[in-house]
Amino acid sequence: MNKLVSIAALSLTVAATGNAAAEQLKPEEQILTRQAGYTFMSWNMGKIKANLEGDFSQQQVAAAANAIAGIANSGMGALYGPGTDKDIGDVKTRVKPELFTEQEEVGKVARNFIQAANNMAEVASMAESQDDVKAAFGELGESCKACHDKFRKD
Amino acid sequence: MNKLVSIAALSLTVAATGNAAAEQLKPEEQILTRQAGYTFMSWNMGKIKANLEGDFSQQQVAAAANAIAGIANSGMGALYGPGTDKDIGDVKTRVKPELFTEQEEVGKVARNFIQAANNMAEVASMAESQDDVKAAFGELGESCKACHDKFRKD
Repeated sequence: MNKLVSIAALSLTVAATGNAAAEQLKPEEQILTRQAGYTFMSWNMGKIKANLEGDFSQQQVAAAANAIAGIANSGMGALYGPGTDKDIGDVKTRVKPELFTEQEEVGKVARNFIQAANNMAEVASMAESQDDVKAAFGELGESCKACHDKFRKD
Repeated sequence: MNKLVSIAALSLTVAATGNAAAEQLKPEEQILTRQAGYTFMSWNMGKIKANLEGDFSQQQVAAAANAIAGIANSGMGALYGPGTDKDIGDVKTRVKPELFTEQEEVGKVARNFIQAANNMAEVASMAESQDDVKAAFGELGESCKACHDKFRKD
């Protein structure tokens, strides 16, 4: 009996750690971690923008696009767990309540964003000039904005 | 003459935005952005660790490894610009002064880290079990720790 209980407990532990993306972090840590992801993507968007407005370094644009795609594909949905819909003490969030209820629309903007990030990374990997990445960068920016408009408070 | 001045000004602007990685951000923004990168990598390291200790999802491990590699290769050195060696108001940094003087050693730990992150992403992309990624993950963790030990205050 004791052995059975232990095995059951172990299985529960394994299941819990297997779904570690969300479970391991407290709600306030989830908020801070998703914000970290957006901050880092924003820096890289800024670098790409500067490369489109000034000198063009394919290497820098590709590296920035890869960072964005890597973050976009990392499963950030797990950082919107229960309790992360409101400020927690000093940890503020601008997320709108709609993000936690409009699952279909959230899925759509998330898929569009990931697709645009992947396309940007692919285009950047073989870009020879600014013209080669302008459209992909515009689409990526639009996919960011679509989510901000719908699910982020001003 | 006016035209010449305009062209000179434009060239300066282009040169400045071309090296946008560092120039665009204020020192406090550089500190917050590099910390965002480390926070996001740490979350993904935690996910890989959980996959090694519990159920193994190759897809989750590969996605986490790609996020880390994308961030590692994004040129974070640009976030250690002048004025980022000390706290700035509420923006605290644990960086040691040595990071700004021991260029050779910094280059070494940075190259080791990027190499370990790239290796982890490659290994994870074709891993069939935990055993396939354990060594690469261990090396990646060591490469993080090497920099923390040398260049981060406790």
